Amino acid sequence: MEDVVPSLHAIIPAGGAGTRLWPVSRAGHPKFLIDLTGSGRSLLQQTYDRLVPLVGKAGVNVITGARHREAVVAQLPDLADEQIVAEPSPRDSMPAIGLMTALIHRRDPDALVASFAADHLILDEPRFLDAVRQAADVAREGFVATIGLRPLSPSTAYGYIETGDALPAASDAAAVLRFVEKPEAAQALEYLRAGTFRWNAGMFVSRADVMLDHLRREQPRLHAGIEEIAAAWDGPDRDEVLEGTWPTLTRIAIDHALAEPVAAAGGVAVIRADFGWSDIGDFAAVSQAVLGTERDLGIVGDPRDVAAVDSSGIVVTSGRAVSVLGVEDIVVVDTPDALLVTTRARAQQVKQLVDHWRDVGREDLL
Amino acid sequence: MEDVVPSLHAIIPAGGAGTRLWPVSRAGHPKFLIDLTGSGRSLLQQTYDRLVPLVGKAGVNVITGARHREAVVAQLPDLADEQIVAEPSPRDSMPAIGLMTALIHRRDPDALVASFAADHLILDEPRFLDAVRQAADVAREGFVATIGLRPLSPSTAYGYIETGDALPAASDAAAVLRFVEKPEAAQALEYLRAGTFRWNAGMFVSRADVMLDHLRREQPRLHAGIEEIAAAWDGPDRDEVLEGTWPTLTRIAIDHALAEPVAAAGGVAVIRADFGWSDIGDFAAVSQAVLGTERDLGIVGDPRDVAAVDSSGIVVTSGRAVSVLGVEDIVVVDTPDALLVTTRARAQQVKQLVDHWRDVGREDLL
Repeated sequence: MEDVVPSLHAIIPAGGAGTRLWPVSRAGHPKFLIDLTGSGRSLLQQTYDRLVPLVGKAGVNVITGARHREAVVAQLPDLADEQIVAEPSPRDSMPAIGLMTALIHRRDPDALVASFAADHLILDEPRFLDAVRQAADVAREGFVATIGLRPLSPSTAYGYIETGDALPAASDAAAVLRFVEKPEAAQALEYLRAGTFRWNAGMFVSRADVMLDHLRREQPRLHAGIEEIAAAWDGPDRDEVLEGTWPTLTRIAIDHALAEPVAAAGGVAVIRADFGWSDIGDFAAVSQAVLGTERDLGIVGDPRDVAAVDSSGIVVTSGRAVSVLGVEDIVVVDTPDALLVTTRARAQQVKQLVDHWRDVGREDLL
Repeated sequence: MEDVVPSLHAIIPAGGAGTRLWPVSRAGHPKFLIDLTGSGRSLLQQTYDRLVPLVGKAGVNVITGARHREAVVAQLPDLADEQIVAEPSPRDSMPAIGLMTALIHRRDPDALVASFAADHLILDEPRFLDAVRQAADVAREGFVATIGLRPLSPSTAYGYIETGDALPAASDAAAVLRFVEKPEAAQALEYLRAGTFRWNAGMFVSRADVMLDHLRREQPRLHAGIEEIAAAWDGPDRDEVLEGTWPTLTRIAIDHALAEPVAAAGGVAVIRADFGWSDIGDFAAVSQAVLGTERDLGIVGDPRDVAAVDSSGIVVTSGRAVSVLGVEDIVVVDTPDALLVTTRARAQQVKQLVDHWRDVGREDLL
């Protein structure tokens, strides 16, 4: 079980500049480059580290924005040139994963590809690895395989996967009936009670040829553009074709381009897993990820920089002395040029502050 | 009424390095040097400004710690050399006020002296000036005059003055029965209900000769030391005598040295006043001083540096962008090297944090 999975290639689309972790994450310094949990490794590095046992160092591929290429290479110095692709501009996840899949398929016609967000947190690595191995087994049979997490709460921050009958290809495999978008609170509670819904962690494992076939059928224009770029990749025209074609690719997420229509046709399987997963989409989630259950105040950064009396929540430090006194459920995020103070309950709404700073012309803070 | 008061000299003892306004006030940068209310003038400068109409620029005298002399001169460039005295070390308020009184008395035997803290806030300046003029009238008759503020709440943060019969010397004058220390909450409520108690703002007006006579009687050793220094002041031995004698002076506050025993003997009068006074002893008081009643979130610093959504309390900025979201009654104090987050209710307990930083050896933050 400790060996790499034959022909499995990992794809990490490292993009996205959300605002919900501002001011730690910025337009020019996205979440995946940051060590948000105080582990000593950025989320991208943690993602890389946990995939190496499955695919080897040569099997991890990253596709990121051109502006982040240098930072990615600095964080992952073992990446060879062919393991990193720089997108000229963001076109959402399907063009990124699709191009990387096409490139891998040309090198290895038997390839299985597995894509994972660059900025999620996973606590129980052995169970994660086991789930991916099961997903690879299911994918070999021609399914697009995904991983569905047991919901721990009626979260309205995550999409859900409705599961059907068990599948024989792996012990935790089941058919996927449908993907559903982030629900309202009442709906989320129904999903939790039903017991047949899973959190969608955005992980997909598929044979490369199967994914490209689905793409050809569902998004033929996008497929053609990707194949055009892939065909030129190892020749003298790579840059020209990439620059010319990339901006014309349909801007669409893999969920809408592939997962939903293929699921409707019975082509998606899910591995039902439970390994402590979070997309750490806001500071409340960071707090939960850092705290576990033991401590009242989570600290990201050097704990010696924090003095806390009768306080709970989370403090993110970047070297200054931070003192909290008598504040409950607080979120304090301290960066060299911007400070955020909010509560865990309001952490989802940080965008309002980002909007304010944009409105008043403080581009330097975005 | 707009003329200076004949023979009146103001004394501003500018000392004290409390911790309750940390991290804005530090051991090396005390509260009086700071513009805590965003007025553009430090508390010391505001104190100076409001006394000039009473005593003229030449009539304001400051006694401060040797380490703060340079900063005081920088803030009050009109002070002549003889208007500023640098204490070699802190000996509490009586040695400071006593020495300055002795020096003034040698220059002007008819002098009235009036002492005012360097770091208090006064909102209604005309009423303040009127109260001091009345105090001067009472002082001319031989009383030590003080000013008692109408209590606005059952504060446990202030000392109180119990008033007796009205005195004919000024329209708002009354005898002082006793001074009482900061009370417990129940006691403070009794004082408020009784109607005969006043907040003690630590302001004293007296004939210089009267004060020195009281001092000779009540604290003969302290009086002798002060006279020894004053006698040497204008000669070649000033520094030597000051350095030798100052450390031997009894360390005592004017309240205990003079106000309490003289009041017990019937020698203290109070002007009953009401001019919006605060010792701004913690950030809750700063908040009250800054907010008035109009705004939910007070800002000290440039308001353009603050983004606030659904928040109340006070933000003290020093140039970084501060964002608050959904926090009620919050206190956020941002300085270049230290950040404080607490609530108005807990603002009195900031000392606990200062103690923490001292305990862990962070002298740089104190």
